[in-house]
Amino acid sequence: MIKSFKHSDGFLARQARLVCDTVVPYQEKVINDMVEGCAPSHAVANFKNAAYLNKNGVMPENGEFFGFVFQDSDVAKWIEAAAYSLAIKSDKELEKRIDAICDIIAEAQESDGYLDTFFTLKRPTEKFKNLLEGHELYCAGHMMEAAVALCDVTGNDKLLRIMQKNANMLHRIFVVEGREGYPGHPEIELALMRLWRATGDDKYKELAEHFINIRGVDGEFYVKEAEKRDWKIWGNNPKNLKYQQSYAPVREQRDATGHAVRAAYLYTAMADIAAVTKDEKLTEACHALFESIISRRMYITGGIGSSRIGEAFSVDHDLPNDTAYCETCASIALIFFAAKMLKLKRDGKFADVMERALFNTVSAGVELDGTKFFYANPLEVIPGASGVAPVYIHARPQRPGWFGCACCPPNAARLFASSANYIWDVEDGVLYSNIFAAGELELDNVCISVETEYPFGDTVKYTVKKGSAKLGIHIPEFTSKDFSVSAEGKLLDGYYYVDVREGDVITVKLDMSPRINRANVRVAANSGKAAITVGPVVYCAEGADNHGEVFGFTLNGSKAPEIKKETIDEIGGFSDAARDLGEVYTVTVQGTQLIPNDPNSLYFVDEYSVKKRKIKLIPYFMWGNRGLNEMRVWLPVK
Amino acid sequence: MIKSFKHSDGFLARQARLVCDTVVPYQEKVINDMVEGCAPSHAVANFKNAAYLNKNGVMPENGEFFGFVFQDSDVAKWIEAAAYSLAIKSDKELEKRIDAICDIIAEAQESDGYLDTFFTLKRPTEKFKNLLEGHELYCAGHMMEAAVALCDVTGNDKLLRIMQKNANMLHRIFVVEGREGYPGHPEIELALMRLWRATGDDKYKELAEHFINIRGVDGEFYVKEAEKRDWKIWGNNPKNLKYQQSYAPVREQRDATGHAVRAAYLYTAMADIAAVTKDEKLTEACHALFESIISRRMYITGGIGSSRIGEAFSVDHDLPNDTAYCETCASIALIFFAAKMLKLKRDGKFADVMERALFNTVSAGVELDGTKFFYANPLEVIPGASGVAPVYIHARPQRPGWFGCACCPPNAARLFASSANYIWDVEDGVLYSNIFAAGELELDNVCISVETEYPFGDTVKYTVKKGSAKLGIHIPEFTSKDFSVSAEGKLLDGYYYVDVREGDVITVKLDMSPRINRANVRVAANSGKAAITVGPVVYCAEGADNHGEVFGFTLNGSKAPEIKKETIDEIGGFSDAARDLGEVYTVTVQGTQLIPNDPNSLYFVDEYSVKKRKIKLIPYFMWGNRGLNEMRVWLPVK
Repeated sequence: MIKSFKHSDGFLARQARLVCDTVVPYQEKVINDMVEGCAPSHAVANFKNAAYLNKNGVMPENGEFFGFVFQDSDVAKWIEAAAYSLAIKSDKELEKRIDAICDIIAEAQESDGYLDTFFTLKRPTEKFKNLLEGHELYCAGHMMEAAVALCDVTGNDKLLRIMQKNANMLHRIFVVEGREGYPGHPEIELALMRLWRATGDDKYKELAEHFINIRGVDGEFYVKEAEKRDWKIWGNNPKNLKYQQSYAPVREQRDATGHAVRAAYLYTAMADIAAVTKDEKLTEACHALFESIISRRMYITGGIGSSRIGEAFSVDHDLPNDTAYCETCASIALIFFAAKMLKLKRDGKFADVMERALFNTVSAGVELDGTKFFYANPLEVIPGASGVAPVYIHARPQRPGWFGCACCPPNAARLFASSANYIWDVEDGVLYSNIFAAGELELDNVCISVETEYPFGDTVKYTVKKGSAKLGIHIPEFTSKDFSVSAEGKLLDGYYYVDVREGDVITVKLDMSPRINRANVRVAANSGKAAITVGPVVYCAEGADNHGEVFGFTLNGSKAPEIKKETIDEIGGFSDAARDLGEVYTVTVQGTQLIPNDPNSLYFVDEYSVKKRKIKLIPYFMWGNRGLNEMRVWLPVK
Repeated sequence: MIKSFKHSDGFLARQARLVCDTVVPYQEKVINDMVEGCAPSHAVANFKNAAYLNKNGVMPENGEFFGFVFQDSDVAKWIEAAAYSLAIKSDKELEKRIDAICDIIAEAQESDGYLDTFFTLKRPTEKFKNLLEGHELYCAGHMMEAAVALCDVTGNDKLLRIMQKNANMLHRIFVVEGREGYPGHPEIELALMRLWRATGDDKYKELAEHFINIRGVDGEFYVKEAEKRDWKIWGNNPKNLKYQQSYAPVREQRDATGHAVRAAYLYTAMADIAAVTKDEKLTEACHALFESIISRRMYITGGIGSSRIGEAFSVDHDLPNDTAYCETCASIALIFFAAKMLKLKRDGKFADVMERALFNTVSAGVELDGTKFFYANPLEVIPGASGVAPVYIHARPQRPGWFGCACCPPNAARLFASSANYIWDVEDGVLYSNIFAAGELELDNVCISVETEYPFGDTVKYTVKKGSAKLGIHIPEFTSKDFSVSAEGKLLDGYYYVDVREGDVITVKLDMSPRINRANVRVAANSGKAAITVGPVVYCAEGADNHGEVFGFTLNGSKAPEIKKETIDEIGGFSDAARDLGEVYTVTVQGTQLIPNDPNSLYFVDEYSVKKRKIKLIPYFMWGNRGLNEMRVWLPVK
């Protein structure tokens, strides 16, 4: 949908603009090692070095591979984000620079189609011999996605041809020649499905299905692979089958386990393939895995992967707030998974999850100014401990400019730049509005403009400017008990179906009253606590709005919270770069503050007073933009 | 005091009996590899193998060293515990068996006095070359403590002579010959002070002071040491100066850092030396370090070391309940430190800390039946996560029979068997009653019997059966606002001073009403929560007493909790072996339970009811004796 939808205004439009104007240019500089104060990325340099080696047969001076084994994917994700940005805002110079990078990539590709600068430069004789840790299939997958996006938006098929050559080689090796093994970090499976759709070449779908079908069938594969080599990259334990989602054939998997990004990328491909092949067992597994996430292993912010150890899913209901991992990439992957689940079953709960992840964890992953990024997204920040003490070392309280392991920043960029693909969908002749966003959609048969301030407004107005359509409007779960649509229609599984034609104006009214959420009592971290949401947006209390203190507060659960529309200037403390955010809802709740007689006393009885006070909350995605301070999503509630 | 005091009844008497009757015999079997189902300890076998090697010049068949590098200390701590047990209950057979082990140790000692089976058997050319990780000084220290205890209780000086020979060698190497370096795991410093007192040989005090004085002066010592060797044991980072308490000369240290057991052993020796030498800077450092623990880094249970990573102190106010490390040994070390602080300043706050650690974490470290032990002592147990999910892997929800790393079980045994040393103290002509415990104390000049059910009774009766004394009775902080003593006296810094003589009966009445404790608001894990204490005992809610569920409970903070005396049969669910515990206070508090309409819903608004209910609490040290269930010390409070 990306080329068919033009954002007009509102939060997602702003994020898309931010990506075009700031994030993509900033990240272009980063991958080219042109940002001072950032650890060099070397991502483009690695491709140049591989190109030099290919051409000259010798390494360039100082031409070693630098960075993580998956450094190539930073370039791929940037190209993909940049390509999407061109659909939003054309930029001929940027197109040329992308094309120039594609030329370097072409030169870095080996003659048989192989493409991975880590192995080309560092371990040329060890290709595909460490699938557990090697990430060469992961990097290839990301480059395939970039290729598809670039061709789709600009028509430039240079990268597409490079990656077809690469995919052809992979198909030959893994399918035709029958090499054992499957990707340690799933990603290529979903990418191959995109490549298949973009090219129509069934080999790619066949390879994707192959990787899915053999995964976990020989659960010992990685153990045997590890026995055959005398080197390692991370030191991953090949016997940790849950970690690498190979504890059972995928059709028999029921619990989301292991590295959260890998898991959700894998499940995305599974759902995609299941929708295409109508594979019942695969469909059943996808539903069970999705349910295991959203019913037992997901934060209210749409964050997944609660454990720093392995960046992984933990056990059911283990959702600590301060040590939460909640990698930005994992929530992006969850959006992908949910989007594919909608293809298996058109049920609003999948769109609800997309919103939850998008408006909270993924949005929080990017500083409002577009140049700083979170990798982990905790739901509670303890100044002095978060990002400092060993068990919180990942849970940084402020966004750094870039990471050595920089998977998240360009991933967020490509997601926001392509949000149209999640806002809208077409299936079986129905035009689905999954997420409310202002703008104009122009398809062959219909043109619809949408006016809304969502998620900071309670009205959505669809105006049909041309043509006709059967429209399926997602009615989010939060408003499912109280909403209205100005046209006769039918509600089914969270979607309101209505036939529209030129001239129709349909107004949807939502219940945006603030909600006091409780968590399952088995979530020990949240017992006795509540979290406030308004629509899909989760709120947090930050010291900056509360005289510097949050941890002494208790919400009064019997008083209705109040919402107000405020600009960042009215809220106060944000940088100028965030001003275009416009108005957002802020929340004020009644509560109390515990004030000890002696603030230095560690434990005390009676020696304190409890004062009434108003607690101010802001959208979670806005936290951490005003310096180090206490932050909390789940507050004690009375 | 150990030989002068005879326990009669009550909790500490019961624990002392348990050590004599069950713990010492059980642990004797363990260190001799005679307990089925326990991983073999090899601790005694290592000494036999070293003895064989010394005698024959060759290794015995299958004679390798097994276990941790500090395995020798398990034997040492067992000897020390067994020696104390002989003061409580004589046992000629046990004395003989201890003597036989001393003979093996004598044979395992090398001709120059060196004693450490790991180095003798495994790395004979690397002695004292890895002080960072090697633990040979730590093991020597524990054996010195055992030697002193054994000689003190039984008069058997065999081990004392062995360890004097060892200490003489150490003094020669480190003081006379000036070898660089100080212990990676402090312990020997406090042991050398005991050896000095037992023998009067000033060399030992000099060596203790030497290790204290040079620590942290050359902060880079471990880095340089590591550069000189090509092998490692644990892989400790020599640059982590805070971890090894060498970030500054000890007199300049102000924050308790690093491995909690090492830290508290070090501080114990510092306080001991400071009291002897009247070193003002050392005294000042000890007070600051103690304050940093009790004001910012200690659990309400007297647990210290909140971080699993490094078994270490974290940052100020970082005291998570579910991931708490709170090693049993660390709280024992804290008792040692507090006892020495009393020698620097007779202030009841030090005795309060001894009680806090003794009646809570240390007592919880031992199963009521005396044959199972905790290493970590969390304040919250989440079934399915605790002891299972990676970040909780250390926080086992049930006590195992032994550990590969078995420092805690014999440490708890020696502490309970020697509790008389902490209950009573004599200094500057004053007889100090630090901890209330029933029994009879007989010194040269006075004989006093004490009747009390403390900590499960509110009355303490001192009867002077013979002689006279100036008595200093510790009035615990919890009762400092409401207590009475039946005799005229003077209260100063938490001690009530009274002169007594034959025939006097002094009755102390305590306020044992349950207290609702709050924590500093900077302790994020406890905000909105409260913990109940009765006297020095911390209480917890366990599923076993509450229909299996705890996490849905909220305390009603405005209703006074009720206490009741109950036997374990009345409480229910405990094994027969715990029956001799007698009556303890249980607590019932008014509260509410959150009951979701759908128990499987992860997040919900309104769809729940809140029911009034009574919440039953038991002493924290009794938790985990009735199978896997939810446990929580800090409960949400309204």
